Amino acid sequence: MLEDKNPQRTSLEELGEFGLIEHLTKNFELKQSTSIQGIGDDAAVLDFKDKKVVVSTDMLVEGVHFDLSYMPLKHLGYKAVIVNLSDIYAMNAVATQITMSIAVSNRFPLEALEEFYAGVQTACEFYNVDLIGGDTTSSKTGMLISATSIGVANTDDLVYRNGAKANDLLVVSGDLGGAYLGLQVLEREKEVFKVNPNSQPDLDPYSYIVERQLKPEARKDMVDLLKKLEVHPTAMIDISDGLSSEILHLCKNSGVGCNLFEDKIPLDPTVISTAEEFKMDSTMIALSGGEDYELLFTIDQADYPKIKANPNLTVIGHITSKEEGVHLITRAETKIPLKAQGWNSFDGIQ
Amino acid sequence: MLEDKNPQRTSLEELGEFGLIEHLTKNFELKQSTSIQGIGDDAAVLDFKDKKVVVSTDMLVEGVHFDLSYMPLKHLGYKAVIVNLSDIYAMNAVATQITMSIAVSNRFPLEALEEFYAGVQTACEFYNVDLIGGDTTSSKTGMLISATSIGVANTDDLVYRNGAKANDLLVVSGDLGGAYLGLQVLEREKEVFKVNPNSQPDLDPYSYIVERQLKPEARKDMVDLLKKLEVHPTAMIDISDGLSSEILHLCKNSGVGCNLFEDKIPLDPTVISTAEEFKMDSTMIALSGGEDYELLFTIDQADYPKIKANPNLTVIGHITSKEEGVHLITRAETKIPLKAQGWNSFDGIQ
Repeated sequence: MLEDKNPQRTSLEELGEFGLIEHLTKNFELKQSTSIQGIGDDAAVLDFKDKKVVVSTDMLVEGVHFDLSYMPLKHLGYKAVIVNLSDIYAMNAVATQITMSIAVSNRFPLEALEEFYAGVQTACEFYNVDLIGGDTTSSKTGMLISATSIGVANTDDLVYRNGAKANDLLVVSGDLGGAYLGLQVLEREKEVFKVNPNSQPDLDPYSYIVERQLKPEARKDMVDLLKKLEVHPTAMIDISDGLSSEILHLCKNSGVGCNLFEDKIPLDPTVISTAEEFKMDSTMIALSGGEDYELLFTIDQADYPKIKANPNLTVIGHITSKEEGVHLITRAETKIPLKAQGWNSFDGIQ
Repeated sequence: MLEDKNPQRTSLEELGEFGLIEHLTKNFELKQSTSIQGIGDDAAVLDFKDKKVVVSTDMLVEGVHFDLSYMPLKHLGYKAVIVNLSDIYAMNAVATQITMSIAVSNRFPLEALEEFYAGVQTACEFYNVDLIGGDTTSSKTGMLISATSIGVANTDDLVYRNGAKANDLLVVSGDLGGAYLGLQVLEREKEVFKVNPNSQPDLDPYSYIVERQLKPEARKDMVDLLKKLEVHPTAMIDISDGLSSEILHLCKNSGVGCNLFEDKIPLDPTVISTAEEFKMDSTMIALSGGEDYELLFTIDQADYPKIKANPNLTVIGHITSKEEGVHLITRAETKIPLKAQGWNSFDGIQ
């Protein structure tokens, strides 16, 4: 499906480990005032003054989280950054630095790693974060990526998962389910390609959801928007594992219950049509699909007027007392308990 | 060689990813005043006030950096922490927090991960660092570990790699080559075990070097000692890849040359005797073996009286001008250029 258009192959042994890090990161500049020393010493040095520091880490494993047969390495580098930054934004913090480590087979040519780092750099520039460290090592088999991102916030700006209270509104940014369905389309095309390597897939009708899978964005814009709207969420989490599992996390951490309304869940038309094509239930996909990297948060009802006109924010439910439990109110107005059916890397969708 | 003495096996699917992280980290307490929020939200929250923050990250790959056939998981957890902390100490900083991510096959029983985290916890307690985050995911094949450690320092205390100047003394802590030779002993016993699974290895004569391989320590004590002795190194680096490659890094970063004296390189008697047994050159092993996690640093000659009586510190050479180059002065008093022959994960010892 994806051809290697670059026939140049420089072996990693030629460069050696130290040369490799230097080579791959030579075009990365430090731009953050908090970055004192980046790559090139035993550790990076940062200066946050009186700000709180926020740290998050994630791992991506080939064959579990990504498939190189349809994921271009540049996109993978981009996605590896944004997956991590999403957690920083979910704290209502500003992402400032990231470390990126990769393990790859030494049969990977240097040019492939350059592609990956080009994606990392594009994301770092777009989200205004400095690459300050990383490790590059060989792997006996597949590719593995580990990133740690760092952000800053004033104490009063931080939003944890535990602040939701009864009668708060449950709000989600963007729309849900696209990344998971994009993956289904790519998997289907891969199977077609296996049978007929000359087939040219027509992904045009699916471009929105394929992009949601291959080049997702982290919702820095939502953090900026909330600040502009003077809305301070009472609790917030990013949606990496599907809406239902994130709602359950948020409710558990806050010690509250929740009613989620099926008819309010924001779905792109492509998600609805593609779900039908795959004979899947679009609500189920939004609840359990994962990888949307949207923000899920709760706000005080008094803040509702500030957000109601914004097309990027949708109220999908409200917080209740813990005793009332966590429920989905279906279109048929039946009330069913919400179960965690998010993505679990140990056995896929549960 | 190492039997699984624990017949209990709980599958990872049973617990699910969220239950797993919660389960594995439930006995970890936050003890650092800088740790505001640990595991359990999108990101950890830290408060460093006016201190500089130091960040380092490392990856360990099964079959490249460790072999589970002779590395007990508890030791591996311990080593995964100290490998990372070593970089923080090499900045003359105080390690305060760490994140630990692992990818394992879902055929790993829970009890194996508990062993790994028990080692992580022992190291965190001994070195007084808080575990503040991590990711646990499945791997299609081997085990992979990625850690990011964080430390603090006052600006004036930080020691970079670039401050060495002509006539400074080159000093190393502890002794070198043990970890590499310990690995050779373990590899040999593994081969013996393959031929005769009933053989009982007698590792007693090698206990020092086997421990250097299986349970190395990071030299926090040296950082404390230097502070007590009021010695501020001009440059410092940790020895993870062999003495020669670290000397070359330090000289390159500082823009200086160096004379290293072969007869000054500190070697434990077990290293000397085992090197003879393996028909290997002990100097070569110290220069290229790696994984010693000792500290290599330069000091102003005026500080020599403060360190000369300490049995843990050895002056092994002196800094010269860049033009003089980097040389090893052999026991036979010949002067040969020092080459980087350290461990390279892309092709082993170069």
